[in-house]
Amino acid sequence: MAKYEQLANDLKTRIDQGVWQGGDKLPSLRQTASNYGLSLMTVMNAYQLLESQGAITAVEKSGYFVAPDRETLSYPQHHDKMYLSDNTDINDFVFSVLQSSKQPSIIPFGSGFPDPTLFPQQAISRSLAKAAQKLSPTFAADNLPPGNLGLRKAISQRYAKVGLSVSPDEILITSGAMESLNLSLELLTKEGDYVVIESPAFYGALQAIERLKLKAIAIATDPQTGMDLDALEEVLANYPVKACWLMTRYQNPLGCSMSREGQERLYQLVKSYNVSLIEDDVYQELYERDKGGVPVKYFDEDGRVLHCSSFSKSLIAGYRVGWVAAGKYAVELQKLQLMSTLSTSAPMQLAIADFIQSVKYERHLKNLRKQLSERKEAMYQLLRSKLPGTVKVNYTTGGYFLWLELPVEVDATKLYFQAIEKGVSLAPGNLFSAEQQYNHYIRLNASYPCTKEIEVAIDTLRHLILTNAEKR
Amino acid sequence: MAKYEQLANDLKTRIDQGVWQGGDKLPSLRQTASNYGLSLMTVMNAYQLLESQGAITAVEKSGYFVAPDRETLSYPQHHDKMYLSDNTDINDFVFSVLQSSKQPSIIPFGSGFPDPTLFPQQAISRSLAKAAQKLSPTFAADNLPPGNLGLRKAISQRYAKVGLSVSPDEILITSGAMESLNLSLELLTKEGDYVVIESPAFYGALQAIERLKLKAIAIATDPQTGMDLDALEEVLANYPVKACWLMTRYQNPLGCSMSREGQERLYQLVKSYNVSLIEDDVYQELYERDKGGVPVKYFDEDGRVLHCSSFSKSLIAGYRVGWVAAGKYAVELQKLQLMSTLSTSAPMQLAIADFIQSVKYERHLKNLRKQLSERKEAMYQLLRSKLPGTVKVNYTTGGYFLWLELPVEVDATKLYFQAIEKGVSLAPGNLFSAEQQYNHYIRLNASYPCTKEIEVAIDTLRHLILTNAEKR
Repeated sequence: MAKYEQLANDLKTRIDQGVWQGGDKLPSLRQTASNYGLSLMTVMNAYQLLESQGAITAVEKSGYFVAPDRETLSYPQHHDKMYLSDNTDINDFVFSVLQSSKQPSIIPFGSGFPDPTLFPQQAISRSLAKAAQKLSPTFAADNLPPGNLGLRKAISQRYAKVGLSVSPDEILITSGAMESLNLSLELLTKEGDYVVIESPAFYGALQAIERLKLKAIAIATDPQTGMDLDALEEVLANYPVKACWLMTRYQNPLGCSMSREGQERLYQLVKSYNVSLIEDDVYQELYERDKGGVPVKYFDEDGRVLHCSSFSKSLIAGYRVGWVAAGKYAVELQKLQLMSTLSTSAPMQLAIADFIQSVKYERHLKNLRKQLSERKEAMYQLLRSKLPGTVKVNYTTGGYFLWLELPVEVDATKLYFQAIEKGVSLAPGNLFSAEQQYNHYIRLNASYPCTKEIEVAIDTLRHLILTNAEKR
Repeated sequence: MAKYEQLANDLKTRIDQGVWQGGDKLPSLRQTASNYGLSLMTVMNAYQLLESQGAITAVEKSGYFVAPDRETLSYPQHHDKMYLSDNTDINDFVFSVLQSSKQPSIIPFGSGFPDPTLFPQQAISRSLAKAAQKLSPTFAADNLPPGNLGLRKAISQRYAKVGLSVSPDEILITSGAMESLNLSLELLTKEGDYVVIESPAFYGALQAIERLKLKAIAIATDPQTGMDLDALEEVLANYPVKACWLMTRYQNPLGCSMSREGQERLYQLVKSYNVSLIEDDVYQELYERDKGGVPVKYFDEDGRVLHCSSFSKSLIAGYRVGWVAAGKYAVELQKLQLMSTLSTSAPMQLAIADFIQSVKYERHLKNLRKQLSERKEAMYQLLRSKLPGTVKVNYTTGGYFLWLELPVEVDATKLYFQAIEKGVSLAPGNLFSAEQQYNHYIRLNASYPCTKEIEVAIDTLRHLILTNAEKR
């Protein structure tokens, strides 16, 4: 064990013992270095490790604080480390949940997108208007796959900012991350192939597997630390897996992130078993740059990682512009897009390219991250104060999802329908599993401010949860 | 080797030896069974194997015939009434042709789109800018599948103008017709299913069939009157066809249209064999309203016709907005889109909706039809005056394609590469067939004005054609 890990363990033990409690400030880096006789760098690494585990949080210019009191959820022990599914059959349910979220009067706890008022809609509309006016007569052909060169260069530069070297040639612009993820999976597999996913997983992965008639192996994913890599190794050793599809940062629905060491081990595992990795990293821009987080793509040595992302979660939803940095699969993926949807809407590509190259984008992202962080914290506190103690809220820093474990008597799918009737949406746990494993879990969107309306909605949930728990 | 394979080999050898020649009737199943002392089933399997290899063809109620000797026959008799293909493998070629067309300096005879200067780019840019400014905060959710209601209503009203009653509920907005055609085929079929297409066919159909691993039955399509409906009937009677994918108006690449009687018979055929029809009608708005043309969808009684179209050929390319009026498949298709690309770009939907509801759209269409008609006529005259008499130009009114038969010695694929070197693109015939059946045909885009540059480009083609014809 490295020195910084030993230190992290030691600090964690003391937090668990109550030496520092939820909300307490930790000693400064310098002070701890002095106390332990360690270098500043070692202490910083230890603090970052604790932060990535959600045990502590950094507050700009103030230092490190112990994360608010939270429960650690009891699974992954509550189900097998993996399961096998031939048919996920999830799509009808997703469809009905998404349809219900279209009603504007509904409190959108079930939404997968950040509060749209956090997006610079007017500013990007101006970029779009500008792009529309400046279109060359040959713009349709110019923006065929792999997509607009200016946009690909801009994305490549954003990779460079976090230390990744990704050539514009490797990037394919798509209709949102949904298309990039789907095209990637379609390229890598044929009917009946094995694919590794998380449990719980983004429902888009379950849908794609259903559509392409693949076999899913879902691996237990810890709500704090991410996929169980021992289980993954066991699966890779025993099944002819073609691809893994997962999220190592702000996992959907859990909200957790894998440690850097975990990411590196993950890459080495897929490499040694010669498996391709579809990395869904749609929340990447919600990362604070200075926290040094990287995607698994960072460790990619031989182009086997297809890194999929989009602007729908960080800049604007509904424009449908995403991309995949497809490594060695770049050209094949261009061809597949060409025969699936031909190309991504050209004015959209140009509008996004214009906006993300301006200073406005960084400024917006800084504000977005701050707002989301504050709102998630506030929502967490509100849920803790309002919901019964039998509800466990999985606290993670970053992103905008909270994953709740309800009393086992509560059927979350039933709860979903009851809540919709009362004007409140939520994402029932079974959306994220083909095996009905999360029927007393829900995912809540924590990107909205805690208005009176939100408080009422949480009261409604409280009431429904209590009623359902009693009934059985 | 199985008995039926031995028998097929034996029969094939005798065909090659000339025992039976092109067009000859083979002995009946019963007779061959008796000759060889084999079961009827074995003989039937052998005949079907030979048929799948294209060596013989089945004619309903008449028996089996030796396939015509392809090289010696001239168009449209130069190919079989149908052929069978397991793997079209066309995509790499399409990809390279489309990539080459991206170079702005190339004379775009190979392009599939009308001259972009015919499009009201500035006016629609203003619609887009307007739409961008007016987006509601919930626009992303509002425009999820089936897509923007205003746009669907506007499309429904355009159907009504030509006498079709198509509810907005039946319409799904897609990323261009490419997505609507692909989603439709994906919904209707599973790996290994039979699909009827035209010969020659839009390459997108060949690509989709390749991607979905389907079996294509391509039916002879007359360059003046469209698909051979007798051949279609024969195929439907003999194969478990799941879907037909075709164009009855301004067929791509031939430019021909089917008669109204033909369209009605086509519908009755698919109905009586319970087959779904994917109708590619992307040039529908190029029809003069007063000519009374209708799509096959007009005759649809039970929602089995999926009518696919787009604005890319009539209003603006590169915006990627199309639709499908999907009949009884509407809801299933929404679900499929939701899990493939999520939705079509919302500002694009709103921009198109704004524009097509204004008087500007009808005015633009009138002008577009007139210009295209005049330009096609002028291009036809120019080609006739400049190209050698050995080149046959298939003249059809409407649309903007001309289909040329070159001297049989000319390899159009080779010609394509030579022409690209000289700065002229064209669409070689083999783009439109999985079976290399059109290797001395080319499709030319006739939507450009006959400028000096175009004249020079035609001189270049003339020169290359003559040189290639001489060489052999």
